[in-house]
Amino acid sequence: MATIKEVAKLAGVSVATVSRVLNDSGYVGAESRKKVEQAIEELEFYPNEVARSLFQKKSKLIGLLLPDIANPFFPLLAKGAEDAVNQLGYSLILGNVQDDVEKEEEYLKIFEQNNIAGVLSAVQGSSKRLKNIPLVNLDRVESFEQYAVHTNDYQGGMLAAQAMADRDPKQVVIMVGPKEVPGSFERLAGSIQIFKERDIAYHLFQTTSFRLEDTDETVELFFKEHPNADSVVASNDVYALAIMREAVKRGINIPDELQIIGYDDMPFSRLTYPGLSTIAQPAYEIGYKGAQLLCNCIENKPVKTKRIQLPVELVLRESLREKVEHE
Amino acid sequence: MATIKEVAKLAGVSVATVSRVLNDSGYVGAESRKKVEQAIEELEFYPNEVARSLFQKKSKLIGLLLPDIANPFFPLLAKGAEDAVNQLGYSLILGNVQDDVEKEEEYLKIFEQNNIAGVLSAVQGSSKRLKNIPLVNLDRVESFEQYAVHTNDYQGGMLAAQAMADRDPKQVVIMVGPKEVPGSFERLAGSIQIFKERDIAYHLFQTTSFRLEDTDETVELFFKEHPNADSVVASNDVYALAIMREAVKRGINIPDELQIIGYDDMPFSRLTYPGLSTIAQPAYEIGYKGAQLLCNCIENKPVKTKRIQLPVELVLRESLREKVEHE
Repeated sequence: MATIKEVAKLAGVSVATVSRVLNDSGYVGAESRKKVEQAIEELEFYPNEVARSLFQKKSKLIGLLLPDIANPFFPLLAKGAEDAVNQLGYSLILGNVQDDVEKEEEYLKIFEQNNIAGVLSAVQGSSKRLKNIPLVNLDRVESFEQYAVHTNDYQGGMLAAQAMADRDPKQVVIMVGPKEVPGSFERLAGSIQIFKERDIAYHLFQTTSFRLEDTDETVELFFKEHPNADSVVASNDVYALAIMREAVKRGINIPDELQIIGYDDMPFSRLTYPGLSTIAQPAYEIGYKGAQLLCNCIENKPVKTKRIQLPVELVLRESLREKVEHE
Repeated sequence: MATIKEVAKLAGVSVATVSRVLNDSGYVGAESRKKVEQAIEELEFYPNEVARSLFQKKSKLIGLLLPDIANPFFPLLAKGAEDAVNQLGYSLILGNVQDDVEKEEEYLKIFEQNNIAGVLSAVQGSSKRLKNIPLVNLDRVESFEQYAVHTNDYQGGMLAAQAMADRDPKQVVIMVGPKEVPGSFERLAGSIQIFKERDIAYHLFQTTSFRLEDTDETVELFFKEHPNADSVVASNDVYALAIMREAVKRGINIPDELQIIGYDDMPFSRLTYPGLSTIAQPAYEIGYKGAQLLCNCIENKPVKTKRIQLPVELVLRESLREKVEHE
């Protein structure tokens, strides 16, 4: 590989000038800058990022913490984050925390050791464990966190309940997401507001995770506790699909005998028939906007909105009955 | 953070001894080693990986290249790789290449600039573009590649065709995977061998990707070209599910009028009813074993098998008819 000296020689400038161009610091005339850039290109000179990060005490790496890479919501979020950081000249280290605090601490340690420029985290509580490194929380955001991109869970809960309330529900069951995920309560509160306003009775079914591995057990318990449920507001798409599968298997007609709405709009939710109605979360955009926000923080650029809230929307497919128009 | 000097002081040894312990080089007495380790723990001293990697010219980072993070096969593979590298003291940088050669080159450049210790790649052709860095190819492996973990695609193609041939197929269509993926031909060859042996006629339907985004178009074309297909050997689970959805939508009974088998056994393939029969690929294990192999290469440990081939297996669910026993 070419050295900085060779670049300087070819460009006809000093090593210090090349260094100023590389670090984007200090004055360099337009003409010199152009010559240096041409020389860099011609010699295929890529400054060693390790040497650079040691010198600058900051690398061009961004760490992303995910709670569960096997949940398809998070690969989409990761893809959005990755596209944004790449466009801005950074790259991404992925840490899959698997809802394990020790693993998370391990990753944060690795990030610090690599002089990481900033952290994106979809894992709760990272802000308590990170010091002096720019952090943007994604998706699972707590109220005290400073920089965040998340969706409006309360609105999502309202939209789901509204769609159900409009479709003549008889026995409503709301599946409540895991207690430790802050959004679960927001969604529940939003749904309850609507059902109360519309004077519709509902039952609650508490779940303990969003994970695929726990669906069999959860679905069994669900049908045991609520054999007559006819309208289900599910905690996410995975659980909604699992309940639909079990219902179809039992010969229960979807949506006539059991209507259901999910949450997330995972890519696979449109591959079944009946298709799953759901609340679409902009997973890709959460990652994308979060990464942009983080890079602005890292580069000390002015940040207009520290906490970005993205809208969710209702997606109607065949798992809900026709809307009933009341006079 | 504590410095190496403070560690040395607390342990009552020289800085050089601490350094030898950290780098695991040169002689250190058992007693001194123990004292250094205790001091490291007490002071929570974590050597800076950037400084270490500059010195050693090798970081503790491993790069993983994926063709498409939104395809659920790859997050599972990534999870396996991550678990293995973590256990061995490394961490993972993820690069999502999105079937884009330029993006791949961009990532390889970033990897080299960060003095990466080794690369795991599920993207084809990486071996041509990487020099002097240990590389293990995963899943999409070409015959000339030296270190690899992959499955037996030929056997998978045979298993899928065998399952179909045993179930009285009338109009067989084999969906062929994208031409540029080496495994596509292997699977096709395996399927053809079985159908030829059993004297069963078949049609071919060529697909251009494994991507979810392309399912609508592909499924439309499929039903246009093969309206009377009654037995489909699909190229992957995503396409199999998409064909099942369209069939159910059209009122075609699964499996009586149309039976189908997928490939991969994605986590979501068991969430539909009828459930999708498929060929299970050990995605997690491919990542896990690949990472172990890579770490052995990096650490110059003896490697018994350079190319590891993992078995695939038939998973039977409701999308195939009952087996017909011929006398």
